[in-house]
Amino acid sequence: MNAMETLNKKIKETDCRIVAGLDPTVEILPVYMQGKIASSSDKAWEEAKVIEEFCRDYIWTISDIVPAIKINSAFFEKEYLQPVFRNVARYAKSLNLYVIGDLKRADIGSTSKAYAEAWLGEDQPFDAITINPYFGTDGVKPLIETAVENEKGVFVLVKTSNDSSAEIQDQVIFESRNPVYHEVAHLVNMWGASVSDGYYYNPVGAVVGATHPKDAELLRTYMKNTMFLVPGYGAQGATAKDVAVNFDQNGLGAIVNSSRGLMCAYKKGKYKEFVGQFGKGWEEATRLACLDAKEDINNAL
Amino acid sequence: MNAMETLNKKIKETDCRIVAGLDPTVEILPVYMQGKIASSSDKAWEEAKVIEEFCRDYIWTISDIVPAIKINSAFFEKEYLQPVFRNVARYAKSLNLYVIGDLKRADIGSTSKAYAEAWLGEDQPFDAITINPYFGTDGVKPLIETAVENEKGVFVLVKTSNDSSAEIQDQVIFESRNPVYHEVAHLVNMWGASVSDGYYYNPVGAVVGATHPKDAELLRTYMKNTMFLVPGYGAQGATAKDVAVNFDQNGLGAIVNSSRGLMCAYKKGKYKEFVGQFGKGWEEATRLACLDAKEDINNAL
Repeated sequence: MNAMETLNKKIKETDCRIVAGLDPTVEILPVYMQGKIASSSDKAWEEAKVIEEFCRDYIWTISDIVPAIKINSAFFEKEYLQPVFRNVARYAKSLNLYVIGDLKRADIGSTSKAYAEAWLGEDQPFDAITINPYFGTDGVKPLIETAVENEKGVFVLVKTSNDSSAEIQDQVIFESRNPVYHEVAHLVNMWGASVSDGYYYNPVGAVVGATHPKDAELLRTYMKNTMFLVPGYGAQGATAKDVAVNFDQNGLGAIVNSSRGLMCAYKKGKYKEFVGQFGKGWEEATRLACLDAKEDINNAL
Repeated sequence: MNAMETLNKKIKETDCRIVAGLDPTVEILPVYMQGKIASSSDKAWEEAKVIEEFCRDYIWTISDIVPAIKINSAFFEKEYLQPVFRNVARYAKSLNLYVIGDLKRADIGSTSKAYAEAWLGEDQPFDAITINPYFGTDGVKPLIETAVENEKGVFVLVKTSNDSSAEIQDQVIFESRNPVYHEVAHLVNMWGASVSDGYYYNPVGAVVGATHPKDAELLRTYMKNTMFLVPGYGAQGATAKDVAVNFDQNGLGAIVNSSRGLMCAYKKGKYKEFVGQFGKGWEEATRLACLDAKEDINNAL
């Protein structure tokens, strides 16, 4: 089964369209965890230990709700945090979650091959990774090929969720009168078709920001066989209604990321009451926020 | 002094416009080194050890010729190679070389901040890193700000050296009638101007592929205050004449990458005779190829 079909299957099984994102920083940790780091004589070692503990608890507490987890590499690239990234990914895999490595890598072909070997090898705990399209076909080909070989997938940045995404991505192309991100969508369609394997959704997915619902609606029509990874719900401002346009008529074909909305639930309104002194019990807040997000999106479909 | 002035100063001191690139794979290693890995009972451990040895010897052998070294992260992202990346960068720093971390990172702002802290912190052995512009201003801002705070720089991908770079980068924009990479150049100019500090070259550089000399010539005129990092010379096909257009009238403002041309010199034509059995003595071939490349480019200016 290809990587996107696997993801759709897990979405059906859980009836949940949320991918729980992990973007951990010391600042977002519950106070009792921050305290452990502050009082340690080896802060780097303690930070790595505490961040890993937080990630594992976070994954455990929602592992029976969500189909997938997305771990953002950026938050694990300090020297002492690098091993934590794959440790956490492996833990999520061991709980039968679909694991997305949010890496946003790309380079010229010979170099992309090295990225592919590092992250999409058979022994790696990632079902899919995110990649950047700026280099064009020869830059992404080794990543796509290695992914397909190992029944894995990629999500190519098409339209990102941030405010400045328009600066390059929305520039209108002279020849086609379409914005740049639409040209990228066209490339993603071609890349996907080139490795299509008979399943409705091919192994080449797209990152489509929830903060631009009109663009997403167009892209859903244009990219029929492309699985969407949808960031921007919650903390970045997009609502369930905004993200609903990314799904097909069966309520599949997309997965919505929530990172800060789940990680920081313990700080927020109605979830606060489940949390004890110094943030103890934050897991319950995360769990409830996750169940609410699941329902919020399912109700909007 | 800002990071690009430092680089220009080192170029003047060495009268060399080559940045020696490190993209090491097992396949390019001299046979005697490959043999160590093949015969080891712990191949991953041995590979890390041998790759680090190769990188250190490579850096040592050219450290009195070149002003700078560029280390590509992709070749160090396997789990057991990750620590080698910073080890090698620190070694190059200790030899007083300018160190470029070829990372090509970018994400939305809050995530780019994490990348910035991981790679551009004061304690990190990188004078500059490469970044990807696809997210626009808010995605690159934290990287640029952190770089400037620590007297470091960034090189933003503008026009890449690979064949498929045209697919997105050369699309002509409706409004401006300029290609996408020219819009990116415009953004890079703005980003650079926003952190300009009175030096002619500001801390925001550009990656401009040597394989498109006409584009580079235009960009040199358009991006007067931008330092260029120029890949594509040698193995990718660009000649010294092709890269000459990237320099200003003082022969500064650009640095030309050579990776495979130096790493694999021991396999090639006239350099072969300096190499013993099983590739022993490859360092001498690298050194001579580096001196030739230096002269080749200086003669073309």
